[in-house]
Amino acid sequence: MINSLKATTKLGFLGAGQLARMSALEAFKLGIQVAVFSDRTENEPVQFMTPFSASGSFDSVDDMVEFAKGCDVITLENEFISSEILQEVQDKSGTPIFPSPKSFSLIENKLIEKQTFENAGIPVTPYKLVRSGSDLKEFGDTHGWPYLLKSSKGGYDGYGNETVRNLESAKEAFEKLGGNKNRDILAEAFVPFTKEFAVQVARNETGTVVYPCCETVQENHICVAVLSPAPIEEKYQKKAQELAVKAVEAIDGKGIYAFEFFLTEDGNILLNESAPRPHNSGHYTIEGCISSQFENHVRAVLGLPLGSTKMNVPAVAMINLLGTHNRPAEADNIKRGLETENGHLHVYGKVQSKVGRKMAHYTLLGDNLEAVYKNAKEVSSKIEI
Amino acid sequence: MINSLKATTKLGFLGAGQLARMSALEAFKLGIQVAVFSDRTENEPVQFMTPFSASGSFDSVDDMVEFAKGCDVITLENEFISSEILQEVQDKSGTPIFPSPKSFSLIENKLIEKQTFENAGIPVTPYKLVRSGSDLKEFGDTHGWPYLLKSSKGGYDGYGNETVRNLESAKEAFEKLGGNKNRDILAEAFVPFTKEFAVQVARNETGTVVYPCCETVQENHICVAVLSPAPIEEKYQKKAQELAVKAVEAIDGKGIYAFEFFLTEDGNILLNESAPRPHNSGHYTIEGCISSQFENHVRAVLGLPLGSTKMNVPAVAMINLLGTHNRPAEADNIKRGLETENGHLHVYGKVQSKVGRKMAHYTLLGDNLEAVYKNAKEVSSKIEI
Repeated sequence: MINSLKATTKLGFLGAGQLARMSALEAFKLGIQVAVFSDRTENEPVQFMTPFSASGSFDSVDDMVEFAKGCDVITLENEFISSEILQEVQDKSGTPIFPSPKSFSLIENKLIEKQTFENAGIPVTPYKLVRSGSDLKEFGDTHGWPYLLKSSKGGYDGYGNETVRNLESAKEAFEKLGGNKNRDILAEAFVPFTKEFAVQVARNETGTVVYPCCETVQENHICVAVLSPAPIEEKYQKKAQELAVKAVEAIDGKGIYAFEFFLTEDGNILLNESAPRPHNSGHYTIEGCISSQFENHVRAVLGLPLGSTKMNVPAVAMINLLGTHNRPAEADNIKRGLETENGHLHVYGKVQSKVGRKMAHYTLLGDNLEAVYKNAKEVSSKIEI
Repeated sequence: MINSLKATTKLGFLGAGQLARMSALEAFKLGIQVAVFSDRTENEPVQFMTPFSASGSFDSVDDMVEFAKGCDVITLENEFISSEILQEVQDKSGTPIFPSPKSFSLIENKLIEKQTFENAGIPVTPYKLVRSGSDLKEFGDTHGWPYLLKSSKGGYDGYGNETVRNLESAKEAFEKLGGNKNRDILAEAFVPFTKEFAVQVARNETGTVVYPCCETVQENHICVAVLSPAPIEEKYQKKAQELAVKAVEAIDGKGIYAFEFFLTEDGNILLNESAPRPHNSGHYTIEGCISSQFENHVRAVLGLPLGSTKMNVPAVAMINLLGTHNRPAEADNIKRGLETENGHLHVYGKVQSKVGRKMAHYTLLGDNLEAVYKNAKEVSSKIEI
C-alpha cells in the first residue's frame, strides 16, 4: 500500500476521452501530474488538460512503451488495446498498467468474459460461440428469436451488436460483424428483463469498495439516464453488489470496474456486461457519493486506500447529454440547468458535436427519485449541444 | 448573461498557484479550456494542467497582452498586478478581465480599500495613513500600543504586516515596510476581537450569492483552519453576510470575493480585509457547499448563472497543510486522511515543499462542528508534506 504521493508522480492514460478527463480531475486533486496517450494528434478532451501529450497507434507497442516510460502508473479508459499488447508495453517500459493485462485478458473477449464469470459462479445471459449457419439456426431454435449477435471484441455502446429476427438476418449480421473473417461471434439470448442496472466496484491491495446498485435506462442500446439507488427491492440491490464484488475478485481486478445486470421477470439477476474502467453508469457518483468512481479509480491504481461509496443524498438522477447537432461543440440553453438547485452540468470538452455523441451529462440530486428524474429530464431536455 | 459555452472558450489565469488550479478544475468540468500566465517559466501548479502556458513579468503589459489575446476571459488569483496595468492589458487585448480593473482599483491599495468600504457604510478597523514619526506616535497614543503597520500594497498571509509595540519599533517597521521610500504605510489599531470569520460572495450580471459565515482560525497571521458555519450567534452570521454583499456591491464586483471580519468583544463586526479572488477561507466549500467558491468564480467571470451556496452537511472543518519540510514535495502519511470517511485531501501540485508554505488542505465533513474539527486536526497532524 502507498502512504505517500510525490508531486512528480505521473499517471498516464491510454485514451484521451471523457472517462480519462474526469479521472484526471481527481488525479489533479491529489496533486499529481497527468500524461495522456491518444490515437489522435489533437483536440481530444484530456489533451487540453496537460502539457504531457503523446500520440500514436493503440496497436504500436513501441509508441506506447516510450510514453509509458515517462509515467509512474498507466491506466486505460477503453477496451481498444489488446491484453497482449498491454502486457508487452508493461514488460518493456517497466511501468505497471492497471487494470493489469492479466485481468483484462479475462474479459476483453466476450466469450472468455462469459466463461470467466460463469466459472466464478456468476449467472450470465445464455450465450454460444457461433461458427456456421447451422449454429445460428440452432441457437434461435433453442433460445428463441429474436436474439443478439455480438462481436466478441471491440464493441461498445451497442456498436458491434446486432439483433437478429430470423435465420436470414442472422446470416447477414454474422457476415457484417466479421464472422466470415475469422472473428469470434457470440449469440446471446434475449432475456425478458424488468430492469437493467449496474454496480461499480473499486479494488486494490488495500481493499474493495462497492457502489450502490443503480438503474440504467437504455434507448437503442445507449444509456440515456442512470437512477440511484435503483428503484428495485433491496434484496436485488444487495445480490447485484455481491455478484459485482465476486466478479472483480474473479479477475483479480485493480482499479474501478462496472458491471451491468438484468433483473429477469422471474426474479433472477444475470450479469450482462463488464467494463474494466470508469463507466457511464457511475457518472452520478461524482456528486452523488462521498468518493466518486473516478476518485476511487485513481486511488485504486495508485495503491492508495479507497474512499467511501456512501451516497450524499437519498436520490440521484444522471442524464446523458448526447449531441443534438453536427457542429463545432457548443452547449446551449444551459441556464436552467445551472440554476436548478443541486443540478450539476459536466461538459467533456470535445470540440466537435455529432448527433448522438456523448458530449456531456447532467446530474441532479434530491430526496425523491421519481421527482428528481422527472426534473432532471425536463431541465436537460432544454440543453442543445 | 451567457446561456451557452463553446468548447473552445478559453479562460485565462494571471497566476498559476493553487487558487488558479482549483478554479481550473471547475472550468474543465464545464468543458472549456484553460490557459495560464505565470511569472515563472515552469513547475507552477497550473502549468501541469494545460498545454497553454505563457510566462513573463506581471509588470509587463506587452507580455500579458499577447497572452490575453488568446483568451476569452481573464481572471486573477493574486493582487500582484496593479489595476493600471490590468486596465492597459484589457484595453490593448480586447479581452475582459474580472475582477475588473475598476473594481480592483477600489481595493488594491489598503488605504483606498478602507475608504471605499467606509464610504459604503461598512465598519472597518480604525486606521490612518502614517507619514512621519509624529504620525506613528500619535496613532499609538490615540488607539493604544501595540498596533499594526501595514504596507498599503502587496501584502498577503501576514507578509507586509508588522506589529509595533512602541515608537522605536514603529520607526523600524516603518522603514522596513518602505515608508521612507514613498510607500504608503497604514497604521491599524489592534481590535480586541473574540473571533475572526470570513464570508465569500459571488456576483455577476445574473445575481449575487453569499456563502455561509465561517470562522478562520489564525496562528501567526496565517490561517490554519476554517470552521463552517462559524460557531457564533446567527445574528452575527447574518450581519457579516449582509456586510459582505454590501462590500461587493460597493466595488461593483464580478467574480468571487472574500471578506474577513472581526467580531469585537463588545459585539461589533468590523471588516478587516478583502480579496477579489477565491480565498483560503473558502476551500471548505469544495465539498461543503453545493457549488464551491471556485465553481461560482468560474461561473461569475463567464457570465453564467451562479450556483447554490447551501451547505451539504451541518459541519465542515478545513485544515491548511503547511509545508513541514524543505524538500521536493511529497505528501506522506496520507493513509489515515484518505481512510477517514468524508475526509478530502487536496494537494496543490507544488514541486517544492518549504516549511510553512501552503502545500495542501484537508477537509472533513460531519454533523458536529466540534467533533469534526477535533478529528480533522488529529488526522491531518499525521500528514507530512
